[in-house]
Amino acid sequence: MGLLLQAQSQSKAQLGPTTERPNIVVFFVDDLGWQDMSEPFYKVKTPINEKFHTPYLETLAKEAIKFTNAYATPVCTPSRVSFLTGLNAAHHRVTNWTHPKADTPTDSKDELLNPPDWNINGLSPVPNIPHTIYATPFPSILKANGYYTIHVGKAHWGSAGTPGASPLNLGFMVNIAGHSAGHPQNYYGEQNYGNLPGKAGYQAVPDLMEYHGTSTFLTEALTREALKALEEPIRRKEPFFLNFSNYAVHVPIQPDPRFVQKYLDRGLDSTEAAYASLVEGYDKSMGDIVQFLKDKNLYDNTVIIFLSDNGGLSLSPMRTGPSHTQNLPLKAGKGSVYEGGIRVPLLIKQAKQHPASTDATPVMVEDLFPTILSLAKIDHYQLVQEKPDGKNLLPLMEGTKSDNWNSRPLVWNIPNKWTVPDGPGINFFSAIRQGDYKLLYDMKNGKLELYNLQQDIGELNNLAPKMKGKTSELSKLLSDQLRTWKAQLPTYKATGQQIPYPDQIKLMD
Amino acid sequence: MGLLLQAQSQSKAQLGPTTERPNIVVFFVDDLGWQDMSEPFYKVKTPINEKFHTPYLETLAKEAIKFTNAYATPVCTPSRVSFLTGLNAAHHRVTNWTHPKADTPTDSKDELLNPPDWNINGLSPVPNIPHTIYATPFPSILKANGYYTIHVGKAHWGSAGTPGASPLNLGFMVNIAGHSAGHPQNYYGEQNYGNLPGKAGYQAVPDLMEYHGTSTFLTEALTREALKALEEPIRRKEPFFLNFSNYAVHVPIQPDPRFVQKYLDRGLDSTEAAYASLVEGYDKSMGDIVQFLKDKNLYDNTVIIFLSDNGGLSLSPMRTGPSHTQNLPLKAGKGSVYEGGIRVPLLIKQAKQHPASTDATPVMVEDLFPTILSLAKIDHYQLVQEKPDGKNLLPLMEGTKSDNWNSRPLVWNIPNKWTVPDGPGINFFSAIRQGDYKLLYDMKNGKLELYNLQQDIGELNNLAPKMKGKTSELSKLLSDQLRTWKAQLPTYKATGQQIPYPDQIKLMD
Repeated sequence: MGLLLQAQSQSKAQLGPTTERPNIVVFFVDDLGWQDMSEPFYKVKTPINEKFHTPYLETLAKEAIKFTNAYATPVCTPSRVSFLTGLNAAHHRVTNWTHPKADTPTDSKDELLNPPDWNINGLSPVPNIPHTIYATPFPSILKANGYYTIHVGKAHWGSAGTPGASPLNLGFMVNIAGHSAGHPQNYYGEQNYGNLPGKAGYQAVPDLMEYHGTSTFLTEALTREALKALEEPIRRKEPFFLNFSNYAVHVPIQPDPRFVQKYLDRGLDSTEAAYASLVEGYDKSMGDIVQFLKDKNLYDNTVIIFLSDNGGLSLSPMRTGPSHTQNLPLKAGKGSVYEGGIRVPLLIKQAKQHPASTDATPVMVEDLFPTILSLAKIDHYQLVQEKPDGKNLLPLMEGTKSDNWNSRPLVWNIPNKWTVPDGPGINFFSAIRQGDYKLLYDMKNGKLELYNLQQDIGELNNLAPKMKGKTSELSKLLSDQLRTWKAQLPTYKATGQQIPYPDQIKLMD
Repeated sequence: MGLLLQAQSQSKAQLGPTTERPNIVVFFVDDLGWQDMSEPFYKVKTPINEKFHTPYLETLAKEAIKFTNAYATPVCTPSRVSFLTGLNAAHHRVTNWTHPKADTPTDSKDELLNPPDWNINGLSPVPNIPHTIYATPFPSILKANGYYTIHVGKAHWGSAGTPGASPLNLGFMVNIAGHSAGHPQNYYGEQNYGNLPGKAGYQAVPDLMEYHGTSTFLTEALTREALKALEEPIRRKEPFFLNFSNYAVHVPIQPDPRFVQKYLDRGLDSTEAAYASLVEGYDKSMGDIVQFLKDKNLYDNTVIIFLSDNGGLSLSPMRTGPSHTQNLPLKAGKGSVYEGGIRVPLLIKQAKQHPASTDATPVMVEDLFPTILSLAKIDHYQLVQEKPDGKNLLPLMEGTKSDNWNSRPLVWNIPNKWTVPDGPGINFFSAIRQGDYKLLYDMKNGKLELYNLQQDIGELNNLAPKMKGKTSELSKLLSDQLRTWKAQLPTYKATGQQIPYPDQIKLMD
């Protein structure tokens, strides 16, 4: 594979007229659960859907293809790196969230296992940065091909002290408020988003000085900055890529004052009302940006992609109620390889008007890499990483899907300890989904679980004891893929030995 | 006058081919004294010049016009606002440095006088922001006319909580590390330039996460970022404007480890060696950027402007030696309307090669506004502020100067208390220079002083008692200009009455 610099040297002359290429806006939400919207992604509207009010998302869904079996990784950085590189997290080895500061592992201590030497510093666009995946991020390809590239909000692709900390090094021409931290210190302008002398931590949100000391909620400030940033490519008549990754709805779950009262009035407690207000604030951002595009007569030439980077948080007391019930009927939540942690909403509105549709094909966050480049009509590009693991979703969007889509395996590998205590599907798990079946490998307990998601979306009925053939088949498929990618596994603290691959686990009777 | 938005709507179609328009790079140094370089701006090389080593500046001077009577205001924000607006500080009313936080006056307490209601929030590109000068900054005009505009380093044009806090609102497409603060909290990458959890203050330098925890000195980090930012307009074949305002050489005077040992070896004490190392670090930045332009074959189509925003700091113990001796033979230093506080180095290298020359015409920082627009071949633009007070320097550069240049008065008005205690020419002074003569108005003492700078650059021999005619003439000229601009004067604490204009001061025998 070639060099990033070669990718950047492609000239505009190779490309067709600007008007042929659509603008691309990605709403990359942080920590939004699969059902945390009034728009359902499940076959029925659930009580969780009923809690939320996201009118702009509902409107968008009427013009989009809705992927009901879309996936990300259980935590944010791995998904974000997969998005930008096209690589599965088992392959790029950024398997847990990255610390704001370089060379700082984020794994909790475990009594039994040690995590492997994963890429704790995240993504790097330049080689030879320790503990990073060296890769060509797709925004740099878009930029090299004439796109005006803008990042707004949470970045969290690389640790401070490495080039990946700055979105400007990842192909973005403009960066508003993105840096190495994964959540805002504070959502309030009155608190300078955390930038108070003597109190600012790694998570103090950069760049928004204009709003310091004002009552502008972070979500609103980022939205206004996104609109301002879009003025420049519009003035220049250049196609643009906007990656809008508003910090909401990640903790700290602070109420968005524009919306919270409604939810309190509906009887939600203060935590859940605050969470719902963060969600509606995000929805308002989407509405404002869509309206802006319509006002500029650009909406009909703009692809809009909406997704979340992992499942909804299900830890109490950060969320209300017993832990791991917040995404029912999905099991568990953020951090877990059960559906609650990895299944995410995904909508894609194409540039040219298409009727709304639903697609149940299992797809994954790394698929957006080839999809976006294909939407941008960029067929030839060079990468420093291997060929993307993601698949171009255009055949699904255009109804020209081939047969092998449903048999494509999706893989998760988390040789990490995200949080103490362990939870359902949380810490040291890998998993594979193929068709309706999903296999989980519990690394600490050396156990395999098998579920039929078509019949049992809540992963309540472990079929492994009954379906040994299927279990063996999937554990072999998962193991082979992990070996192919040289995916990392944890080691036993006691011996230093690597744990077995899933196909080395003896099936229990 | 029209609206900023109108200025921005001018289309590229009105302009000539890109190649006709030069790139423009401004090295806007912070707090660099008139002699704090190995290149002399005085008629002889002084002992101060001998302290410093700035080889790249010497090289640049060989291809530039050297203005030996160039001026700024005594402190940074007023000069920076004059630069961006073309207005004299008496006119724009940002007469003191602006606080990082909105609505926070920076004047020290005085027993006799209260400062007026000056524009404590700085420059604003949008109307109706309290305590700001609403004006069209020239970078927005450059941008509207096809320039790719980049700011790197210290901004300090407006307070946080107002739009002027962000260079992105002032016509810059790219902003690296500029915000509402006037100096860096820390020059060291090892200290994250101040961004340490729990320790970061208003002055923690934004944006440079890539270098956090590394040994990259701030000056070097900003230089590398400037070079990276320049890649984009070069790739696009667009003319660019780079405002490179490295935080050096402002306090904290921390040694630049790349250069300090040489100065210690020469016998300078730790403070002066550190200061000299900051200066040489800046010089190295200039050398690197010039070399980059040469490597890209752009040097011969690039205008380079070098200046400081005020005189050198002359306060002990921040500088070594008795206060106000650091700029000898100039009197006093930063904060003062004596020459040590306002006379600054200014070099302009034109795009097309010109022989080195020297010009002794008194010129001022606001002259760069029309000069830069003229160099960019932008003849028609609309401003929300009044017509610039600055004059286009091109006739001086092209040798087509008319007679009235030497009679043009330059004016300073500082109805403010910068520091405690008062010092020579520091706090509550106004001044005017016309030809060789300079009149100072000491507001607190109700006194006028007159100097002949041609004969007495050190302002040691007050001619006011002897030359009452000239004194009256200049006090009238100064007063008329202050009245025309509705310049602000302080009031007496005891009565609330405004102090007299200088022409209301009775001349003493």
